[in-house]
Amino acid sequence: MWSAKPIYPPKGFLFSGIIAGIKKKHKNDLGLILSQKPASASAVFTTNVFLAAPVLISKQRIKAGTAQAILVNSGNANAGLGNEGIVSAKKTSKALAQKLGIKESMILLASTGVIGEKFPAEKIKNAIPKLVQNLNPDGVLEFTRAIMTTDTREKISSRKIQIQGKDVRILGIAKGAGMIQPKMATMLGFLMTDAEASPDTLNQLLKQIVPHTFNRITIDGDTSTNDSLFLLANGASKVKIAPDKPGWNRFRNALYQICLELATMMVADGEGVTRYFYVQVNGAKSKSDAEKIARQIANSPLLKTAISASDPNWGRIIAAAGIAGVKFNPNHASVFLLSPNGKNRMEIFKHGARSKKYRGLKQEKRASKILSKNGFKIIFHLESGKESFEMISCDLTEQYVRINASYRT
Amino acid sequence: MWSAKPIYPPKGFLFSGIIAGIKKKHKNDLGLILSQKPASASAVFTTNVFLAAPVLISKQRIKAGTAQAILVNSGNANAGLGNEGIVSAKKTSKALAQKLGIKESMILLASTGVIGEKFPAEKIKNAIPKLVQNLNPDGVLEFTRAIMTTDTREKISSRKIQIQGKDVRILGIAKGAGMIQPKMATMLGFLMTDAEASPDTLNQLLKQIVPHTFNRITIDGDTSTNDSLFLLANGASKVKIAPDKPGWNRFRNALYQICLELATMMVADGEGVTRYFYVQVNGAKSKSDAEKIARQIANSPLLKTAISASDPNWGRIIAAAGIAGVKFNPNHASVFLLSPNGKNRMEIFKHGARSKKYRGLKQEKRASKILSKNGFKIIFHLESGKESFEMISCDLTEQYVRINASYRT
Repeated sequence: MWSAKPIYPPKGFLFSGIIAGIKKKHKNDLGLILSQKPASASAVFTTNVFLAAPVLISKQRIKAGTAQAILVNSGNANAGLGNEGIVSAKKTSKALAQKLGIKESMILLASTGVIGEKFPAEKIKNAIPKLVQNLNPDGVLEFTRAIMTTDTREKISSRKIQIQGKDVRILGIAKGAGMIQPKMATMLGFLMTDAEASPDTLNQLLKQIVPHTFNRITIDGDTSTNDSLFLLANGASKVKIAPDKPGWNRFRNALYQICLELATMMVADGEGVTRYFYVQVNGAKSKSDAEKIARQIANSPLLKTAISASDPNWGRIIAAAGIAGVKFNPNHASVFLLSPNGKNRMEIFKHGARSKKYRGLKQEKRASKILSKNGFKIIFHLESGKESFEMISCDLTEQYVRINASYRT
Repeated sequence: MWSAKPIYPPKGFLFSGIIAGIKKKHKNDLGLILSQKPASASAVFTTNVFLAAPVLISKQRIKAGTAQAILVNSGNANAGLGNEGIVSAKKTSKALAQKLGIKESMILLASTGVIGEKFPAEKIKNAIPKLVQNLNPDGVLEFTRAIMTTDTREKISSRKIQIQGKDVRILGIAKGAGMIQPKMATMLGFLMTDAEASPDTLNQLLKQIVPHTFNRITIDGDTSTNDSLFLLANGASKVKIAPDKPGWNRFRNALYQICLELATMMVADGEGVTRYFYVQVNGAKSKSDAEKIARQIANSPLLKTAISASDPNWGRIIAAAGIAGVKFNPNHASVFLLSPNGKNRMEIFKHGARSKKYRGLKQEKRASKILSKNGFKIIFHLESGKESFEMISCDLTEQYVRINASYRT
């Protein structure tokens, strides 16, 4: 997943990332994406009741269905500041609009970092000339570094596909790390394509793809005030994408793959995370039941700590499943472990009791080995219906606590 | 709270605690409470769908409203074993009934420890003669040590009150430590009194008191398969307790104080916990709204880690409140900090923005000092109604992860 792959920047997009002095450390903290001409745009935002200022502003501006630039900073979330935060954020987009010679309403905003600290609008304004000067088609890495907080790795995924004999490029960039739970995390995500598509088509794509990718991950069950995922399509490839046009499925699938890759990267690079894993609930009466149980298992601190030590403490799986607020017959419930390559499947718990196939130290060692790898799967089967739900989660380590206890210092 | 206080064992109760070899370490792991004559009895159990064998058995036996003995072991939860677990548990109560010369149905069972390991019924049976031989009115400490797992301190609270000129004693013993979230934790609790009371009266007392004490604590949001709280009244004091009798309020209040003390002890001695704190939500439209928000704040890993470092990272309070699934106007929300003695009250966040009174390093240091103490309070005010809810929570430290990653090794 992390191996070096080619990056396919979509045509007509420029990227920049610089040090504006927002972060205490001397690191990139201000980023800009510019489409050379206005692009169709869609976005989804956090479900938190408290919305950060950039979310409030972008939510408003995205309604028009077009955008041309996204200004992003790390080091300060511009959240919890009330009207003052909105005024500060608008100062930065106004300055950028003047510098770029475009309408302010065409600029989307995103911020990530500490909540409740005065927003450094002046620093950002002062850095805008340099930020714009550095814009270039190959600035993807510099931009990606500018949006990172406790991320340890850049999260980039891209595809080049052929539609009607022409190349279409899709690029996804994201940041994650902590405060991450489905329904949007402190995640920022930027999806760009040089395909041509209407805002409605983009809305539809996000609506179809997000529930199966970004909304299925969890790191710590917390959800930030700043989560934003943007999708821009500027049409520079001259290929039109719509549900009734050729290449729709190919495009949608490529975008889905990119989102899934970014979502998985986010979990795998979660704060203090040493491994990620899947939680699949099968045989539930309803989708909502399956989801509740999957989320409860995926968020159990006790299970997550056991996994950090490769301890097949399956009692914590059933204990978590049993408090999800779903009624089911415990004597019909079973638990399986699946190795990442799918070759090794172990029955751990069968119809309400430890499985007869799972006895002795040898079996425990086999299970422990599965848990030590990235990408294994815990399967919880209820045998009470046909619905399923799958989550991506990660282990909980001392390092998570260390990072978050010292986050502001 | 932990200072040495006198223990008032109720008349007519005997206690014992010994080493039966269930725990890997050479420590007390088998305990017995015996009432010299049959006592009125009531109990509440875990809400987990998966019920441990001793819970299934005790739930059945408590229906009669009388009991005479409680057999408890630590080191093995007797959970996740299906029918085999029930058969094993009954072997131990049968052996004890024979030794004591009482009906098996008068024996209640409780277990705590690892889930899914073969239950050591033979070890327990072999230890029963010694367990019974050691029974004595002053065996409270030995019993308490026999039910501890990762608890670092004995949790005992008792009162002697005067009703109608006679002494009535109430004694509470509990264990806690991890997998603890309201609605019963891996907590075992034993309440005994020499008052005389009907099973109905005992049910009523538990129903009134538990929601305000044991069900308001949280350590990690997980709930065990084994939680049980027992209340036995053997009448040895010759004082009758009932809602229409004199002394009812005095008795109920003493029992409430004992439960609150035990619940607070459990949080304060949670795994890796260095401090406990209260989360109070005020001004909610409904009790249920207040509870949802209080639980979400009290369970936020990000907030709990910040508190372990005395970091007044209040953004994590509002971020947690905002994802509780409750609709409210963020511009009416405020956050206050209250020092343990109630003298120092700080307005941190006011009507949707960082409070004007809370600016600068000096204020942050003041807040940090409040967070460094046991028993401070976070107040979240919604200004949208009149309902309140309060939780007791604790910090999350690297030690929690260390304990739980190595729990079975």
